[in-house]
Amino acid sequence: MKTLRSFVQGGWHQADTGFATLHNPCTEEPIAQASSAGIDFGAALAFARDRGGSALRAMTFAERGALLGAMSKSLYEKRDELIELSSLNTGVTRKDAKFDLDGATFTLSYYAKLGESLGAKHWFAEDEGAQLGRSPRFWGRHLRLPRRGVAVHINAFNFPAWGLAEKAACAILAGMPVISKPATSSAWVTERCAEILVDSGALPEGVLSLICGSTGDLLSRLGEQDVFAFTGSADTALKLRGLPNLLASSTRVNIEADSLNAAVLAPGIDRDSETWDLFVQDVTREIMQKTGQKCTAVRRIFVPRDEADEVQEALCERLGSAVVGDPHESSVTMGPLATEGQLRDAEAGVEKLAAEAAIVHGTGKRVDGRGAAPGKGWFFAPTLLRVNDGGAADVVHRHEVFGPVSTICPYEGGVESAAAGVGAAGGTLVTSLYVDGPQALTGYLSAGGATSGRLYVGSEKVAAQLPGSGTTLPAMLHGGPGRAGGGEELGGLSGLGLYQQRVAVTGDRALLDRAGD
Amino acid sequence: MKTLRSFVQGGWHQADTGFATLHNPCTEEPIAQASSAGIDFGAALAFARDRGGSALRAMTFAERGALLGAMSKSLYEKRDELIELSSLNTGVTRKDAKFDLDGATFTLSYYAKLGESLGAKHWFAEDEGAQLGRSPRFWGRHLRLPRRGVAVHINAFNFPAWGLAEKAACAILAGMPVISKPATSSAWVTERCAEILVDSGALPEGVLSLICGSTGDLLSRLGEQDVFAFTGSADTALKLRGLPNLLASSTRVNIEADSLNAAVLAPGIDRDSETWDLFVQDVTREIMQKTGQKCTAVRRIFVPRDEADEVQEALCERLGSAVVGDPHESSVTMGPLATEGQLRDAEAGVEKLAAEAAIVHGTGKRVDGRGAAPGKGWFFAPTLLRVNDGGAADVVHRHEVFGPVSTICPYEGGVESAAAGVGAAGGTLVTSLYVDGPQALTGYLSAGGATSGRLYVGSEKVAAQLPGSGTTLPAMLHGGPGRAGGGEELGGLSGLGLYQQRVAVTGDRALLDRAGD
Repeated sequence: MKTLRSFVQGGWHQADTGFATLHNPCTEEPIAQASSAGIDFGAALAFARDRGGSALRAMTFAERGALLGAMSKSLYEKRDELIELSSLNTGVTRKDAKFDLDGATFTLSYYAKLGESLGAKHWFAEDEGAQLGRSPRFWGRHLRLPRRGVAVHINAFNFPAWGLAEKAACAILAGMPVISKPATSSAWVTERCAEILVDSGALPEGVLSLICGSTGDLLSRLGEQDVFAFTGSADTALKLRGLPNLLASSTRVNIEADSLNAAVLAPGIDRDSETWDLFVQDVTREIMQKTGQKCTAVRRIFVPRDEADEVQEALCERLGSAVVGDPHESSVTMGPLATEGQLRDAEAGVEKLAAEAAIVHGTGKRVDGRGAAPGKGWFFAPTLLRVNDGGAADVVHRHEVFGPVSTICPYEGGVESAAAGVGAAGGTLVTSLYVDGPQALTGYLSAGGATSGRLYVGSEKVAAQLPGSGTTLPAMLHGGPGRAGGGEELGGLSGLGLYQQRVAVTGDRALLDRAGD
Repeated sequence: MKTLRSFVQGGWHQADTGFATLHNPCTEEPIAQASSAGIDFGAALAFARDRGGSALRAMTFAERGALLGAMSKSLYEKRDELIELSSLNTGVTRKDAKFDLDGATFTLSYYAKLGESLGAKHWFAEDEGAQLGRSPRFWGRHLRLPRRGVAVHINAFNFPAWGLAEKAACAILAGMPVISKPATSSAWVTERCAEILVDSGALPEGVLSLICGSTGDLLSRLGEQDVFAFTGSADTALKLRGLPNLLASSTRVNIEADSLNAAVLAPGIDRDSETWDLFVQDVTREIMQKTGQKCTAVRRIFVPRDEADEVQEALCERLGSAVVGDPHESSVTMGPLATEGQLRDAEAGVEKLAAEAAIVHGTGKRVDGRGAAPGKGWFFAPTLLRVNDGGAADVVHRHEVFGPVSTICPYEGGVESAAAGVGAAGGTLVTSLYVDGPQALTGYLSAGGATSGRLYVGSEKVAAQLPGSGTTLPAMLHGGPGRAGGGEELGGLSGLGLYQQRVAVTGDRALLDRAGD
């Protein structure tokens, strides 16, 4: 059985006790073990802060960008190997593995280019500035300086490569060293990515560390100049963000939590239109992609009441063609859930939803997978539910099932009424809105735009180019209010903000202009 | 005795029980009482969110700006009355009262103008956007939409007018209603400001509420779309930011806490230069202004070791000319501390500092005030201390005395060594740096710029225009990392960000361009 290692203080660390076991989700066989026992987290933090931080702050944006470019390239070169490992470790199809891996390399190369465009500076001014006195000599502007601590990243099991890469890209380009901790169940993929990055020789010492296993006392050692970014469940986020030292030191914390994302079909969309087709196609993919294990997946489908039957029929037809099973079978379109715990939670979750929603497709239960031994593997039937009145529902707006499960929520009236239903979940990462003109978009923004971090607008003329609402793009904000955690990641240049200190600098403009950057 | 009222649900509320007493700090006589007993905080929140929020979101930036302009004007018209009341309520000199009141009207009028320049929109895009697909049709940009909750503001006792105004200006311009709660000891000034604003007739119902007295269960009722901004002590901030509902709902929280701000004299500044004079003059004012009761006051004075005697002599001479007493005496230049608690804390604080620092001016004790009855009034001697080695000090970097007290910290070597000393306080609101060229500025930014939210650069050619490092300007960020709370207020347009939700909108560019704003 493979034993995963951690990478701290510039070297690989292998524990000899305290192991957690990783399983192949298709066979339930143990495949690897991970433990962080024996790591001196205080020393690991100091090494990252001192060596990694100094190295990065001495580099220009262009140099940090070149580093990210090299990271992207080295991962891309091992793409086939990583796809295979992803299937073994997490049960994903080739397509779903690529979604994670290509997301990782694309995000790294996006920030590599951004670094190149920022050029030979170590920090930048976010504005030209403003005259503050009676003459333009007294001037002020806002700089963005790298924070002098370490960025600790805890990632979710569903994106073992992309989670590592998207957070690291922003931190490293801003000038902060990273300690990354993947969810244990999928940590083999992340460990291999880290190995590839370390072996590439591109990383200065201390810039990237990896913790496989538990975080021990790592988080309770974070301080004023550190950053802690977490992606995962709202329950875990709540525990971590309340850690006394994080509160007392104002440690910068960013949370990206599961949320009950929604798709909204505006009233009056022609059933023969490309917009309607796009809606059905997007929603189906967002239910099935990565077996529904995406924080951006569509959990609620808001449709005008008189379209609900038609939508249900179209979705059931498409979900009915899904082939659940071991991704090594070429006909399989959807792999298993990642762990036994995920399977049990999904089954229990559908039971909860079924208290107020009718199951209209699937069973909400484990199924046998094609190409897998009967009774083995954490396979789950894609499941569609429906409530009578989206506005009157309760559990559907509060309980997320982290699997291929979604609920049709009929609404009456205009998009404003759908917006109220979307808002009932207390904040989401993304809402997709399918419209045929600007009026419904304006109405939605006005009535409920502020309850999601991202609004994905689907319409006819752009249908062929759209990647799906669940796809997070490095140029656009990733994060949402309330239930979604209140965080902000990515979004182009502003994605660096989490790792920078805004500093207002005021004084003699001629002097400020002559200062180095 | 005056009984202060609260303004909630569109009307004035007077309690009949549970009063706290306000005193005249010069005479110690009770002058007013305040209580929030009987307020239904749930109803007050609902009224603000529903009525105030709807009213503001229906207004354009230009209209909200006009509202702020009317608020500024109505306060300015009562300036003389408010100056008199400030002296009675908080013991400030006329000059210090104006600092607070003019800060309030200036900040309101600054944001009024900003609103005018933003024009007839209800929200704005923060960027032009980016091409996301293979053709420019698939486009994305970031909007800033008003959050749909209420902004609850808790302010410190030292700025009863400015605290109300600076926070309200940003929230209202962004489109969020405000519930403001002043510190009880100085709440009479704030109550009168609110009365003037209400009586002006400019405020739509629910836009501004006022709580005099305790906040009851107000904070535990905040949710996902609300904002909570606090200015005050780090201890209180820590308790409040850990409230379970704020953590669970990702309520947006902004903390602006007391911090151990520093002034740094760069090496090699000529003692006969204007820069040297500016340094001495600024530091003296930052010790004495508002009797040192400013979150931006200079608590630590970093000077090259071989300049320390000269600096000490110059500061002692200036502090020696201070006249402490009742501000109604025309010769008085510094009023009392605001409360008996502040006086006791200041006395105890100097005792703490004296464990490692020598008192070189003043006594760190209560004194009799000119024009005040002997033994009466919370007057305090301006007190200067000095440590041998700023780098080796400990208590001086951790314990803030919220009064006219500061400590000289000699350093050796370049500004980088001073930066390390400044950073030992774990994050500050502002550092002032006195230099004669860009090299020291670059060195400071690189070595320690990220440990302060604002860097005030003092130099010769701009000396005559500088307002002092303790003056917070609406165009520049107010807030600092770590110990200073990690918050961000003001800073021009970005000051609205606390009250807005960033939303990434992606889709057909032609459609996005035609949507209303």
